[in-house]
Formats: sequence, structure tokens, C-alpha cells
Amino acid sequence: MAKIKVGVNGYGTIGKRVATAVSKQDDMEVIGITKTRPTFEAKTAAAAGLPIYVPAESIPAFEKAGIAVAGTVDDMIAAADVIVDCTPGNVGPEYKEKYQKAGKKAIFQGGEEHGLTGVSFNSTANYKDSWGMQFSRVVSCNTTGLLRTLSLLDKAYKIQNAYVTIVRRAADPGDSKTGPVNGLEPSVSLPTHHGVDVKSVLPWIDITTMAIKASTTLMHIQAVVVKLGKEVSTDEVLDLFAKAPRVRLVSSKDGIKSTNQVMELARELGRDRSDMYEICIWSDGVKVVGDTLYYYQAVHQEADVIPENVDCIRSMCKLMEGPESVAKTNKALGIDH
Amino acid sequence: MAKIKVGVNGYGTIGKRVATAVSKQDDMEVIGITKTRPTFEAKTAAAAGLPIYVPAESIPAFEKAGIAVAGTVDDMIAAADVIVDCTPGNVGPEYKEKYQKAGKKAIFQGGEEHGLTGVSFNSTANYKDSWGMQFSRVVSCNTTGLLRTLSLLDKAYKIQNAYVTIVRRAADPGDSKTGPVNGLEPSVSLPTHHGVDVKSVLPWIDITTMAIKASTTLMHIQAVVVKLGKEVSTDEVLDLFAKAPRVRLVSSKDGIKSTNQVMELARELGRDRSDMYEICIWSDGVKVVGDTLYYYQAVHQEADVIPENVDCIRSMCKLMEGPESVAKTNKALGIDH
Repeated sequence: MAKIKVGVNGYGTIGKRVATAVSKQDDMEVIGITKTRPTFEAKTAAAAGLPIYVPAESIPAFEKAGIAVAGTVDDMIAAADVIVDCTPGNVGPEYKEKYQKAGKKAIFQGGEEHGLTGVSFNSTANYKDSWGMQFSRVVSCNTTGLLRTLSLLDKAYKIQNAYVTIVRRAADPGDSKTGPVNGLEPSVSLPTHHGVDVKSVLPWIDITTMAIKASTTLMHIQAVVVKLGKEVSTDEVLDLFAKAPRVRLVSSKDGIKSTNQVMELARELGRDRSDMYEICIWSDGVKVVGDTLYYYQAVHQEADVIPENVDCIRSMCKLMEGPESVAKTNKALGIDH
Repeated sequence: MAKIKVGVNGYGTIGKRVATAVSKQDDMEVIGITKTRPTFEAKTAAAAGLPIYVPAESIPAFEKAGIAVAGTVDDMIAAADVIVDCTPGNVGPEYKEKYQKAGKKAIFQGGEEHGLTGVSFNSTANYKDSWGMQFSRVVSCNTTGLLRTLSLLDKAYKIQNAYVTIVRRAADPGDSKTGPVNGLEPSVSLPTHHGVDVKSVLPWIDITTMAIKASTTLMHIQAVVVKLGKEVSTDEVLDLFAKAPRVRLVSSKDGIKSTNQVMELARELGRDRSDMYEICIWSDGVKVVGDTLYYYQAVHQEADVIPENVDCIRSMCKLMEGPESVAKTNKALGIDH
């Protein structure tokens, strides 16, 4: 069978990772990426052999920088079967029109509204909802993190309600524009969008979220309080998490006490860009009291949505069932158990 | 009436602030502070005219540094009516024996166990519980913050249960030994001690706490979820907070979006050491949904317990009623509404 031709529109934090992940699959290939300026990332993409498409007006700048241009953004859209749109948030509606006109499938990211596509995606929670669809949307990093564990808990024990406080990273490691550098910033618009976004995939979950931005670049942490419909032991929950795809138990007893140590583990694992695709749960920080479960999980904001984008392509192209796709993506990316 | 003679044992983060606050009251005076090494803080204390008492073995070091010594720690204990013990956590039991032998009253800080004194103190929640007692304990900064608002809410609306996630500062501004510098560290021992400590003052409150350390030196933030026994409006709760002693409403609309901006406000207010004694609640981050109230509050970890120590002295010495003491302390420290 011919490989699915994937175009990656936008080569920032998410786009560059999607390109790497897609290029590691045997049933799809990256036919191009887009870039508007000839930055260092355009150069590393060129060095990696990725065809670079640019807006017509950017061609002179790329030629001046000595970076070969494969064509315009429209050319890439025309050549692709599926576009993974990794452009900055809220420009999606404009591009959606282009994809629609060209009759192409497209995946948007969590920076866009659920309403743009009407369907949102998470590999474990609702793989089948994007089956054969022209458009879908992979939810944001925090929402992906929540869905990975809440969908499991809901299936096993029926969630009565959930309260989550998210401590968000202030900036990505490569950023230097945002803050706070020494402070904490609450998201005062309550409840925050994260819970609403969980409901875009699992509408029946009663969840409320609060969020605080902290002075760190390495991962978010989510403090989760879940009331379950069944009394279970802490060990049963740990067992559920241990077997879950893209969930990794870490322990302060192993020397992983903080998010920077989780990221240090990812570097030791030899991952591309030292990424941690899995949601990491502190096994010694999981506790059930009565019918209420408490746990902490860490989300690598740059990486956890990457395998979901690969799976979403397969669902939209009706290539295989969810569990099969998850296993295939995991194998290609070196996510094991 | 003679002023109460107060000795401050330990002149670190809390001790130096207690000394300043006590010296501003007209019904008590600082008869001395203790210091073990002739650091810059010993020099600023000497410059402020505070008599410095030291362990016998430290006298030569202070003489060498040219800092006058008023006597030994035992001398200070003998000269005081009340000792405010601000020594590092867990050396309290040793000192308690000394105070007991000398027949002196003493206040310990939140680093000690509740069991050391059997009574813990918060000005608004339980002023009367320390009335005439020989020993009491002012709870920690986070617990003080929680008690200030939870005691109010419980009185007004009867709290059914509370979940609090505390984002803790990694170090105080003057520290350079602790971290993380770029990371988040969950307190995996669940539930954390903060909720337990709230119950040492208000035993009937059903509260569970989680905590995450963040890379900042400026304040803790507490994300609070409280189920109330009564349906109330967001405005009613805001009104309650607006009238509460030592609670200050701040707003992101006024340019106070983060803890560093709260601390910048304290600097503008001309406070001693630029301290924020009040618990600061984001008025635009307070929200009631059904019977559940959500809010964020910021706690200046170095400062919020300082007025409580002053009030605790008055309660233990039976000088006046709680509301009267709170008002008097507030006036002396420049805490207005």
C-alpha cells in the first residue's frame, strides 16, 4: 500500500516533532514542511532532507540564506494527502478554507477551538471519533495528559467528579519572551479551559480545572483529585496506571523527585530531542482515601501530543484500529513499557 | 501597665520580623534577640539597638566582629516574660524544657509539631484557645493563609469539604541553597501536612491538601476548592473577603497578575522589609459554581505569621480580646483596609 503523504504546515515546537515522528513510521511519509523564515530550524530541517515549502514572498530570503525551497505552501497542500496544521493558534480557520478547497484532510492542534473541526482527538479516549473524517483536532498537551489517565479511570471505576490544579510551565525551553521569571501567575478566568477541553472528548466527565503559571520551562504538573464510583485500593489504581499505554510511573525513591529529573530521564532514554511522550505519574504520590483518588502527573508540553498526531492520521485515513495504531506508533518512537 | 518583656530566640526569617513588629507595639518591648553567628543580620540588629544574646561559646566570635554582646541565651530567657521561639524547626522540644524550668511563657512556630504545645494559634480562627497559656504555637505560613479565609467561610456558610493545591516557593529570597531552579517538585507524601495542620486549629474542617514546589522565591499560591453548606453568590463571597481582617483583594485588572506583582505592591506600600502581611486573593479569580467556591490566594511566606505572633503574645498574657488585638497590631504595622 502506498504511504500516506503528510505535509506539516508550521515547523515550530509541535511541527518539527510531528515531522520527525511521521518520518519514523512505515505507513506514512513527510512530503514537506513549511517555514516562513530561514531560521536555524529551517537549516536543520534542510539538513535532515525535509523538503521546505515557503510563502511566495519568503522565497528571496530563503535563497539568500542558501536554503533550497521546494515550492510554495499551496504547492505542499496540493502534494499532500493529509496536512498536520501546526501553525500558531487561531490562524486555523483561514487555513481550513485552503485545505477544504484543495479537498485535503487536515489535523489541527489544541490552540484552535473544538468548534473548528467539531471533533477532537485522543488516542486512548476516542480514536474512533475521527475515523474517516476530513478534519480533526488533537487537544492540547494538558488536555491530552488528563485524557490519558481520566479515560482509563472512568472506564474502570466511573468518575463521579474531578478537580484538577495545573501548574503550567511559563515558557518552553527555547523561548525567551514569556514569564514570570520569578513568580506564580494564576489563571483567573475560572473554571479554566482545560476541563472544558476534556469534555470536548469525554462530554460526560464532571471536571473542573484551575491553573497557575510557574517559573519553569520543564513540564507541567497536574494535581488531580478524582471521586470514583467505586471503592478501590491504591494498589489497584497503580496497577491500572502501570499497564496503561503512554503512561509511565516514576518514583521519588528512584531519584525522580521533580520535573527536571523526569526530563533528565528522557535524555538518558536517548529519545529524539530528549522528549518524554508519556504522562509521568509519581507512584509514591498516588493515594486513595475512601472513594477519592489523589495523584500528581507530569506533562511534557512539547511532546505528549506527538504520538497522538500520528495516530490521528491513521484514524482519519482508516488505516487500522486504535490499539493497533498506538502500539505501532509507540514502537516506532521507542515508547515501551 | 508595664510593657510585656519579649525575648526573640533566633533571628532568621521569622525572628527578625517578629522583633521589628513587637518593637512597634506600645504594650510590649523586645528585651533581646539571640544569634549564634556574627552575620550581617547580627550587625543590622546591633545597629537597630537590639540587645544581642549569644551562646556562651559564640562570645569570642562576636567580640572579634566588634558586636556588643548583652549576655547568654539563658540570660535573655531569664530577663523575658515571653520568649518567641524562632529557632530552626524541631529544636523546640529542647528549648521548651529551658523555658519551663525558667517558668517563662513561650511561643513556637509552625516548624514544630502541634503536640509540643497542644495548642496552635491563629488570630482570627481561635485567639481564645491560647488565653493565659504558658505555651502556644503559631501555625506555618501556608496554614495561617488557609485559616484566615477558611475560618471565615466556615462561620458564614459552613464548609462541607475543601481541596487545596499549594504551589510552594522553592526558597526564600535570601536563600541560595535550595531548589528546584527550573522544575516542579510534588510533595508525594499524601495528603500533605498542611490540611492536618489546619485541623490542629479547626478540627471539624474536612480538608485535604496537595503541594508542589515551584522555582520561585516570591510567595506561595493556594488554589482552593470549597464545597459550602449554602448556595451563595460570587459577590457575597467577595464581600465577605473584602471585610475580613488581614485579607486583601487584588485584581489582574489593576495589573496584579502574579505573585511578583503582589510583592511589588508591598514595596510601594512602604512596609518594613517590603512585607505583605495580608493574604491576597484575586478578586477576578473568585467564582462560585453551584455550591462550590473556587479561589486563588497568595501567601507571603516570610510575613503572614508575624502579626499572629504579636496577637498570640497578647492572648497568652490576657491583655485584651482577639478583635481588639488584631486591630491594634494592624494599626501598628500599617495594615489597613
